[in-house]
Amino acid sequence: MAETTLVPGGEGRAVRVGEGQVFRVTDVDGGQVGDLFAFAAADPAEYASAEHTRVAIRKLFPRPGDPVLTNRRRPILSVLEDTSPGRHDMLYAACDPARYALLGADPAHRSCAANLRQAAGEHELDVPFVPQPLNIFMDVRAQEDGTLVSHPASSRPGDHIAFLAAMDCLVVLSSCPMDVVNISSGGITPLELRVSEAGEGDEPGQHLP
Amino acid sequence: MAETTLVPGGEGRAVRVGEGQVFRVTDVDGGQVGDLFAFAAADPAEYASAEHTRVAIRKLFPRPGDPVLTNRRRPILSVLEDTSPGRHDMLYAACDPARYALLGADPAHRSCAANLRQAAGEHELDVPFVPQPLNIFMDVRAQEDGTLVSHPASSRPGDHIAFLAAMDCLVVLSSCPMDVVNISSGGITPLELRVSEAGEGDEPGQHLP
Repeated sequence: MAETTLVPGGEGRAVRVGEGQVFRVTDVDGGQVGDLFAFAAADPAEYASAEHTRVAIRKLFPRPGDPVLTNRRRPILSVLEDTSPGRHDMLYAACDPARYALLGADPAHRSCAANLRQAAGEHELDVPFVPQPLNIFMDVRAQEDGTLVSHPASSRPGDHIAFLAAMDCLVVLSSCPMDVVNISSGGITPLELRVSEAGEGDEPGQHLP
Repeated sequence: MAETTLVPGGEGRAVRVGEGQVFRVTDVDGGQVGDLFAFAAADPAEYASAEHTRVAIRKLFPRPGDPVLTNRRRPILSVLEDTSPGRHDMLYAACDPARYALLGADPAHRSCAANLRQAAGEHELDVPFVPQPLNIFMDVRAQEDGTLVSHPASSRPGDHIAFLAAMDCLVVLSSCPMDVVNISSGGITPLELRVSEAGEGDEPGQHLP
């Protein structure tokens, strides 16, 4: 049975995902960036790591079929499918109070770092530090000279990206509350986090391999 | 007075650098990658962070004039000058026993992660975890589609990159022992780490601003 968690706009939620289960992140209204974290259930000091994943896949972001590696270089997730335009980011740190302070906003502004700590805490997981997230639907492009150009998210209502869990893990998703820099488009809106068994289909055209 | 530390090929060394001091990394024989880490002297849980730096500079790697930020988004270093072809990397994790095991090499192979722990330990710094390093002289290029292409280091004998310290820090440099994947060229060779006061010149044409 699939279980669906609504992540309200600007907030974070965590779900436990078992090895072999599938979860997907759906952009309900479109244009919303989500910061995704995954921690090994057996030991939260092992987590999805951007820099270890890049070495393994030789890409800036994993594509369908690619694994996401932990800081111990073990697969924790893999990308199953992606119905969005395929623009995601794995270069930028999660927003945090220091980021909002530097932008001249209230340091008490909601942030993905605080959302992570709160959502993980509700599952008795004390986050040792804030790993670099997979920034779902965030459109950051590297130019040939190494310059990074950020565009507002181009994901459409209902677009989703699905992952297969390669180990038992705690998955945390934050609907990024960033409203000072224009990374989301059309306001801060909810995301949906849906966990199901592998092979458990949905609507036609969205069956998982 | 400048102080020079030779980092033997494949090994690591750490030096304390005071706020306002300058250090430079010289590729003695050319073609050698160096993994560079910096920890705040006041609290090693604050360290040079690739993902926070990228957000601030909007580049894959800092160029002369750009800061390097910590995980608390405070400047810890800035790049002063770079006499090399300017190819460096800030995307790839430091090599470690797990990396060598995956490559079919001896997991006891020297690694930048082990070099970091050993060199920092000699300065009574217990590294809380291995941050993503600044991979000096490592030539990884991001293509427009997000694919990463690695080339052997193109730095020439005597090429250097210099940094200004924005706070008291422990700087660790590892001459990367990776000899399974071809990231260095011409064998594993020494690097030189030289700490001096800002404005303390060297040869003509190499005066620091």
